Amino acid sequence: MGDPAGIGPEIGAKAMARKQIYSLCNPLIVGDANAMKQAVQIADVDINVRSIPEVSKAKFEYGTIDVFDLKNVEIAQLEHGKLSAMAGNAAFEAVKKVIELALEKRIDATVTGPINKEAINLAGYHFPGHTEIYAHFTGTKDFAMLLVSGNLRVIHVSTHVSLRQACDMVKKDRVLKVIQLLNDGCKQFGIEMPRIGVAGLNPHASDGGLFGWEEEKEIIPAIEQARAMGIDVEGPLPPDILFPKAKGGYFDGCVAMYHDQGHIPFKFEEFKWNNEQGKMASIRGINMTLGIPIIRVSVDHGTAFEIAGKGIANPQSLIQAIKYAAKIAANKKLSNSVD
Amino acid sequence: MGDPAGIGPEIGAKAMARKQIYSLCNPLIVGDANAMKQAVQIADVDINVRSIPEVSKAKFEYGTIDVFDLKNVEIAQLEHGKLSAMAGNAAFEAVKKVIELALEKRIDATVTGPINKEAINLAGYHFPGHTEIYAHFTGTKDFAMLLVSGNLRVIHVSTHVSLRQACDMVKKDRVLKVIQLLNDGCKQFGIEMPRIGVAGLNPHASDGGLFGWEEEKEIIPAIEQARAMGIDVEGPLPPDILFPKAKGGYFDGCVAMYHDQGHIPFKFEEFKWNNEQGKMASIRGINMTLGIPIIRVSVDHGTAFEIAGKGIANPQSLIQAIKYAAKIAANKKLSNSVD
Repeated sequence: MGDPAGIGPEIGAKAMARKQIYSLCNPLIVGDANAMKQAVQIADVDINVRSIPEVSKAKFEYGTIDVFDLKNVEIAQLEHGKLSAMAGNAAFEAVKKVIELALEKRIDATVTGPINKEAINLAGYHFPGHTEIYAHFTGTKDFAMLLVSGNLRVIHVSTHVSLRQACDMVKKDRVLKVIQLLNDGCKQFGIEMPRIGVAGLNPHASDGGLFGWEEEKEIIPAIEQARAMGIDVEGPLPPDILFPKAKGGYFDGCVAMYHDQGHIPFKFEEFKWNNEQGKMASIRGINMTLGIPIIRVSVDHGTAFEIAGKGIANPQSLIQAIKYAAKIAANKKLSNSVD
Repeated sequence: MGDPAGIGPEIGAKAMARKQIYSLCNPLIVGDANAMKQAVQIADVDINVRSIPEVSKAKFEYGTIDVFDLKNVEIAQLEHGKLSAMAGNAAFEAVKKVIELALEKRIDATVTGPINKEAINLAGYHFPGHTEIYAHFTGTKDFAMLLVSGNLRVIHVSTHVSLRQACDMVKKDRVLKVIQLLNDGCKQFGIEMPRIGVAGLNPHASDGGLFGWEEEKEIIPAIEQARAMGIDVEGPLPPDILFPKAKGGYFDGCVAMYHDQGHIPFKFEEFKWNNEQGKMASIRGINMTLGIPIIRVSVDHGTAFEIAGKGIANPQSLIQAIKYAAKIAANKKLSNSVD
C-alpha cells in the first residue's frame, strides 16, 4: 500500500480498477482497508474494498479489492501530504508483512508502493529504503538495486553512500557479484543469454589508465572472471557511451558503478518534467531488488506528498511494476517446473 | 579542419555545400587545401576549393570553399582511419592558427572539427584536448567545457580527471567560477536572465548530509555567493532530478560536478545508437569552451576513424556548431555596439 499519507493507496486503487491486472495475476493489497476505502473515493473508481484477515480468504474478483487488513491507520488522524509516525508505521508494517507472506510462499511476488524514509524514521524504524528492509528481513547479504525502463536495465555496485565511498566500494568481488545478479535478473525477464555492459568508474573508463586505476585493478579482473563463468559481458565502457548503446538495444543489462551513474540516464529517460504544471511524471519505470530469495518490484517514484489526496496521481509506474512482478513470477514457476 | 585522417574534412565539405551557412556567416576553413579537395570528392559535393594565404583574400562566395592553406598534408601519405604524426600535426597547426587569427580579431569566431589526442601526441604536442589547447594559447586560467543540446546546457566543474580527483576539485571558488561562466555563457545565447541549476556531488545531493559533506561545505556557499551577485541559481539538486528538469525547460543551464555527471545525460539525449548499423550517430550537440577571450564552438564527436574516407559521415553536429558560433558572434557584436 505504501505510506497512506502519500499517493500509494490512490495509485493502488487506480491500478486495481484495471481489469487487465486481474487477467495477469491474483492481486492482493496488504495495508489498511479503511485507508484503501478512502483511496477508492479519492481515485474516483467504481470498486469495492473487502477487508480480509488472511491470504486464503481472498477472492481475487475484479470489482472488489481484497485488502489483507493490518488495521493500522486511524482515518480521522490521517493527513495527506503530512509526515507522521502513524503513516510511517503503517507503511513499514505493510512491507514487513508482504515479505513474511512471500517467505511463507503464501504469495508469489511482492510489489511495493512508495514509502517515506522520514516517516519510517518517525515510527522508529531506521532503514534508508525498501531495499534494505527486504535485505534485513530476508537475511540477504549480497543484493543490488535494478532499475528497468524498456531496454534499459541498470544494476548498481553501490547506492546510498557518498561518491567518495562509492569509489572505495568498486572492488572486484562486488563487481563480479553484481554482474552475476544482473545476469540472473535478465534471465528472470526471459532473456536466455543476456548481453551485459559494464561501465568504468572514471571518465572515458580512465582512457587506458590516464585518469584512475579502478578499471585496471578491480573492474577488468571482475569482467574476465565473469566471462570465464560463461557470462556474455563487455567493458569497462566509457560511462557516457554505455547507456546510449544500451538504450539502442546493444546491451540487455548495464552495470553502473555508483548511484547517479545509473540513475541519471534512467531518470533522464523515464521522468518527464512538465514545466507548465511544475511537476515531474514518471512514465513506466520500475525498480527491483536482486539477490533476495523473493520477488520484489517497486514503483520508481516517491510518495509525492505535494499531490497526495487530490486524485491526480498517475498509476502508470505501479501498473508496470505489477506486470513485471506477474511476469517474473510466471517465468519462475515455469523454470521450476522444468528443472 | 580537424585531423585529415578522420571525418573532419569530409563534414567540413558537406557543411560548406549548404547554402544556408553562407547566409549566416562568412565561412573560412583553416587547414590544408589539398586535403579539402580530396574531401570534396569523398563527400561528393559540387563545390570548388580555393587556396588562400591570408584572411583578407577570402571571397566567402557560395560554391567555392576558401581554405586558409597551411600546406601541411602530403596527400600521397595520408591514410584515412590511421593515426599519424603528419595528420596530428596538421590538426594541431590548424587549431593553433584559428586561435591566433581570432586573437588578432581577423575572424569573429572559431569552430573546431574533431582531432585525435593520440595523433597530436605523435606529432609531439601534449594536450588532453582542444579545450586545453585553447586555454594554453589564450593564456586562460579559469575555463570550462559547456555542452549544448537544445534546452540542455551543461558546464563542468572538472573534466578529464579521475572520479576521486573530481571529488577533490569540488571547491567553493571553482563552483562559483563555473556558475559565473555558465551565467555569462547563457547570456551569449541571448538569454537575458539565465536560470541556473546546480547538481550536488553525492546521490540525492547527500540527502541533508546523510552521505557526503561537499554540498554543505563547498556547493551551498558557492550558490549563496552567486545569488548575492544577482545570479538566478538553485541547488544543489539531486543529480538525477536536475537534468530531467532542465530538459523539460525549467533551467537554462546546469552545473555538473564532474565529467560523467554532465556527459551521461547529454550523450543519452544526443547520441543515438543504431543497432543494425552498429554505429553511434550524434544528432546536433555541440561543445563550447567558456572563459576564453575568443569564441570557440566544436562538434561533440570524435574523428570516427572507422568510417573516415567513406563519404558516410554526418555533418549535423558541425553545421549546428557553425550556427551557434555565428549566433554568438552576432550577439557579441550587438552587445558591444550597445555598451
